[in-house]
Amino acid sequence: MASGKAITLAELVKRFGGDIAGDAAHGVESLAPLDAAGPAQLAFLANQKYLSQVETTRAGAVLISPADLEKVTARAGRNFIVTPNPYAYFARVAQVFIDLASPPAVPGVHPSAFVDPSAKVAASAVIGAHVSVEAGAVIGERVKLDAGVVVGRGARLGDDVHLYPNVTVYHGCRLGARVIVHAGAVIGADGFGFAPDFVGDGDARTGNWVKIPQVGAVDIADDVEIGANTTIDRGAMADTVIEEGVKIDNLVQIGHNCRIGAYTVIAGCAGIAGSTTIGRHCMIGGAVGIAGHVTLADYVIVTAQSGVSKSLVKPGMYTSAFPAVNHADWNKSAALVRNLDKLRDRIKALEAALGTREEE
Amino acid sequence: MASGKAITLAELVKRFGGDIAGDAAHGVESLAPLDAAGPAQLAFLANQKYLSQVETTRAGAVLISPADLEKVTARAGRNFIVTPNPYAYFARVAQVFIDLASPPAVPGVHPSAFVDPSAKVAASAVIGAHVSVEAGAVIGERVKLDAGVVVGRGARLGDDVHLYPNVTVYHGCRLGARVIVHAGAVIGADGFGFAPDFVGDGDARTGNWVKIPQVGAVDIADDVEIGANTTIDRGAMADTVIEEGVKIDNLVQIGHNCRIGAYTVIAGCAGIAGSTTIGRHCMIGGAVGIAGHVTLADYVIVTAQSGVSKSLVKPGMYTSAFPAVNHADWNKSAALVRNLDKLRDRIKALEAALGTREEE
Amino acid sequence: MASGKAITLAELVKRFGGDIAGDAAHGVESLAPLDAAGPAQLAFLANQKYLSQVETTRAGAVLISPADLEKVTARAGRNFIVTPNPYAYFARVAQVFIDLASPPAVPGVHPSAFVDPSAKVAASAVIGAHVSVEAGAVIGERVKLDAGVVVGRGARLGDDVHLYPNVTVYHGCRLGARVIVHAGAVIGADGFGFAPDFVGDGDARTGNWVKIPQVGAVDIADDVEIGANTTIDRGAMADTVIEEGVKIDNLVQIGHNCRIGAYTVIAGCAGIAGSTTIGRHCMIGGAVGIAGHVTLADYVIVTAQSGVSKSLVKPGMYTSAFPAVNHADWNKSAALVRNLDKLRDRIKALEAALGTREEE
Repeated sequence: MASGKAITLAELVKRFGGDIAGDAAHGVESLAPLDAAGPAQLAFLANQKYLSQVETTRAGAVLISPADLEKVTARAGRNFIVTPNPYAYFARVAQVFIDLASPPAVPGVHPSAFVDPSAKVAASAVIGAHVSVEAGAVIGERVKLDAGVVVGRGARLGDDVHLYPNVTVYHGCRLGARVIVHAGAVIGADGFGFAPDFVGDGDARTGNWVKIPQVGAVDIADDVEIGANTTIDRGAMADTVIEEGVKIDNLVQIGHNCRIGAYTVIAGCAGIAGSTTIGRHCMIGGAVGIAGHVTLADYVIVTAQSGVSKSLVKPGMYTSAFPAVNHADWNKSAALVRNLDKLRDRIKALEAALGTREEE
Repeated sequence: MASGKAITLAELVKRFGGDIAGDAAHGVESLAPLDAAGPAQLAFLANQKYLSQVETTRAGAVLISPADLEKVTARAGRNFIVTPNPYAYFARVAQVFIDLASPPAVPGVHPSAFVDPSAKVAASAVIGAHVSVEAGAVIGERVKLDAGVVVGRGARLGDDVHLYPNVTVYHGCRLGARVIVHAGAVIGADGFGFAPDFVGDGDARTGNWVKIPQVGAVDIADDVEIGANTTIDRGAMADTVIEEGVKIDNLVQIGHNCRIGAYTVIAGCAGIAGSTTIGRHCMIGGAVGIAGHVTLADYVIVTAQSGVSKSLVKPGMYTSAFPAVNHADWNKSAALVRNLDKLRDRIKALEAALGTREEE
Repeated sequence: MASGKAITLAELVKRFGGDIAGDAAHGVESLAPLDAAGPAQLAFLANQKYLSQVETTRAGAVLISPADLEKVTARAGRNFIVTPNPYAYFARVAQVFIDLASPPAVPGVHPSAFVDPSAKVAASAVIGAHVSVEAGAVIGERVKLDAGVVVGRGARLGDDVHLYPNVTVYHGCRLGARVIVHAGAVIGADGFGFAPDFVGDGDARTGNWVKIPQVGAVDIADDVEIGANTTIDRGAMADTVIEEGVKIDNLVQIGHNCRIGAYTVIAGCAGIAGSTTIGRHCMIGGAVGIAGHVTLADYVIVTAQSGVSKSLVKPGMYTSAFPAVNHADWNKSAALVRNLDKLRDRIKALEAALGTREEE
C-alpha cells in the first residue's frame, strides 16, 4: 500500500479534519499497525487494548481520540492527529494512499466496448474492454465500467459509480452517486412471479404457470455498495428500492419490491423474499432468511442463519439458529425435540398423579 | 407500461379466450389496479376483498371470473372480460402491452459477437454484443442472446429462448423452447465429484483428490425459467434434467444428476445436492437444503429454510425451521434444547419416584 | 465419452501404475459400468455390492483392488488392472478418454480478446473470445481462459489453469498450477468492511459507513477447484489463502482473510465469514454457515445446513440442523421449544412437590 508519495499531517487535517498534536509538517506515505509502523507511516488506535503500543510505536504519527490521547504519557517527539473516530479516519486516509499508488484511470471508451449511439456517456467516464452500454443509457461523470459490464437500455448511473467486471444492470434501473457494485452482481432481473393456470389434480393436472411481467425497476440511492454475485430483482409494478448508504455483501438475494432502509448492512448469503421492507440502520447477519411481505423496524439486528417469518416491530436482536455441537449429542437432542409433546404429556401425567396442576 | 397503442376487447378475446360482457369494441392500452385505472386501462379482480372496487372503478374493462361477475350489481356501462382465471389472463395481456412498448428486436448478429463458423444460428435470432457461440452450437428461431452470453460447443437452444446478459451455457447442454435464463446463471458446470486418493492419517496423510470427469450434460425442457446467478451442474455420466414448466429463482444450486419434475417451483437460495429427484408440482421454499440421493414425491411442499435429509414419499408440507425470536429468549431455549436429555432424565426420575411409569 | 481411439492396458499401466492380470495388449476405448460394458470398454469395481457383476461382465477389462480380485473365481479369459484405488484410477482414465474425444485446444489469442501490452501470456495459452487480460498480468503455460474471462491488473495464473466463461479474477490475485475455476466465479472482490461513522441515535442518527480499503489479495495454491458463481474475497491487509488441493463447490462465499487448509472440501451454498481459519482435510457440508474469526481443527466435518459460531478445536463431526418433518408436527414441537423454560419449571415444581431434588 506504500504510495512512495508523502503527505503531511497538515494536508491530511485540511482534507479530513481533526487536530494535530506534534509536527504538522511531518510526512507519511503509507499505513501500518502500531507495532510495525515506522517514521514514514501512519498508525491508528481504535481499541483500548493496544493503548500501551502508542507509548512505544515508531510510527510517524498516530490517529487517536481525544480521550485516549489524555492517557498517553510519552507524547514528546510523537505526532498525533486527534479525531473522535480514528478507525473511520484511518479508512479515509487508506483510500488516499491506494489512489496515489494506483495507475490513474484514463477517461474514454475502450475500442472493444459497444456504446449505443443513443446512450449518453460522460467524457470523464472510463469504459472498459467488452463493455456494452445499450440504447438510451446515461453514464455519469467519472463512472468506471470494468471489462464485460452490461448496462441495459435506459439505465442511469450517477456520478462516480464503479461497476466491477461482468456486472449486469438491466434496462431502466437507476444507481445513485458513488454506488459500487462488485463483479458478477445482477441488478434488475425479473422478480419471481407466476400465476398458476392449472386445472385438475394429481396426475390429471394440466396447464402451466403464466409469467407475471415485471415492469418495475431497481432504484438504488447514493453510497450503496453491493457484493459480488449478489442479485437484486426489479419490481413487479413499482420499484425495488435500496436507500442511501446500504451495504450488501456477496451472494445476497433481494426479491422484487423490497425496500431496504438507509445504512442497513446485509451480510453474505442472506435472502430476502419479495415485498419485504427493512428499516434503517438494521444489521442482517449472514445467511439470514426473511420471508416476503413482512416489515422490520429500524435498528433491528438478526443474527446469522436465523429465519424471520413475520414482522419485527421493535428494534432489538432476534435469533433462531443453533450452534453446531458434536453430531451424536445433537442427534439425541433432535430426537427429543421431535418428541417434545411426549415429554410434555409425561409431565402432565405426573402433575395429574400428584394433583399439582389443573389448568393447562 | 403504457404502450400508446389501443387493443380492443374483441381482439384480446380472440387471442386469449374469455367472453365479453359490454362493449367489445372498447379499446385499452395499458393495465392498472381497479382503484387507479381509467377508461383506457384494463383492471382485474383476482381477490374477493377488492370486489367492491369493481362497482366504482373507472377502468375501461375488468377481467373477472363468472362467479364474481354474478356478484356485481352495477354492470351498466361497464365492460368485462369473463374468464375462469383473471390473474393468469392479466399476466398474458401484460406481456402484450410490454411487447408493444418495447423496441422491436432486430434479428441478426452484433458485429462484436463471435459465432463459430460451424454453429447454426437461425436468421430470426438476435445475437447481442460480445456474445460467443462456439463450434457446433445450434440456436433456434427468434432466440435472444443478450450481451456477454456464452454458448458452449455443441449446445442447443430451442426456439424463443432468451438468455439475459453474461449467462454461460456449457458445451453439450440443451434448452427447450421458450426457456428464459436470467443474467449470470451458469448451466452445465462440472458436478462436484472427486475420488479420494490419500494414504496415511493425521499429519502423515499424503495424496490428493482425483477429479471425476463430468461427461453428462444438462437437459432443460420447454417453458423453464431460471433466475439470476443460479447454477445447474452437468451430470457425471447421465444428464441433469429439468422438466417442462419448472421455475427456478435466483442463486439456486442444483447438483449433478438431479431431476426436477415438471411445473415444480424452487425459490431463491435453495440448494439441492446431487442425484436427487424432485417430483412434479412441488414447491421448494427459499433457502431450503435438500440432501443428495433422495426422492421427493409429487406435490411436496418444503417451507423456507427447512432441510430435507431423506426421501419424502408422501405429498404434503414439510418443515424444520424455527422463526426468529428475541435473542435472549432464544438463547435460553437453545441451552435447554442442548440439555433435553437431562430434562428427560428428571422426568424419568419423577416417574420412578411416583411409580407411574415402567416402560420407556 | 467414446473416443474411437483404443488404448492398451499396457499403456494405461505405464501411465497410471497398477498390475495387469490377463492380456496386456487388449485395447479399450471408453468406460462403462460393469453391467453395460462391452469388450472395448473398461469397467471398475469400487463397491463390494457389485462384486458378482465382475463374474459376468463383458467388459474388456476391470479395474479392481488386490483384495477383491482374490474373491473373483471366473478369471479365465478376463482382463484386470489391479490397483489399490480403482475409483481414483477410473477417474484418471476417464480424463484421458475425454481429452482424446475433445477437439484439441489451439494455442493463441482470439482476435476479439483484449490483452494489455504489458501482460505476459505464455505462447501455449488459449485465450478465448472477449477475454480481458489487464496490465501486468502473467498467464502461465497451457492456461485456458474461456470466453468473457477477466484477469485483473497484475494477477498471476500458474501453468495449466483453466478459467471457464465469465470468471473474474481481480487485480493482484494469484492462482497456482492446475487451478480450475468454473463460470461466473469471482476471485478477489473487496471484503465486507466498513467503519461506522455515525453520531446520534434513533431518527436523529447522522453520518455514514466509511469503506475500509481492501488491499490484500487472494492467494490460491495448486490443484484447487472452485465452483460456478462462488465468491472468494480479497484480504483487508493480508491475503485470503486457499491451500493446495482444496475443492469448493458452487455458490460458496469465503470472506476476507480466511485461510482454508489443504485438501478441505466445501459443498455448495456454504458461507464462511471473514478471518476464519479452517484446517486441513475438513469437510464442510452444503449451506453450512461459519462465523468470522473462528478456527476449525484439521479433520473437522460439519454436516449440511449446520451453523458454527465458535472454534472447533477437536476433529470430529458437528451438527446443528434438523431434518424436515410434517409441517403440523413441526409447529407443535417448535412451540414447545419456545416454551421449554415453562416445561422445565413444571418439572422443578414436581420435584419440589416430591422433594426429590434439591440442587439445580
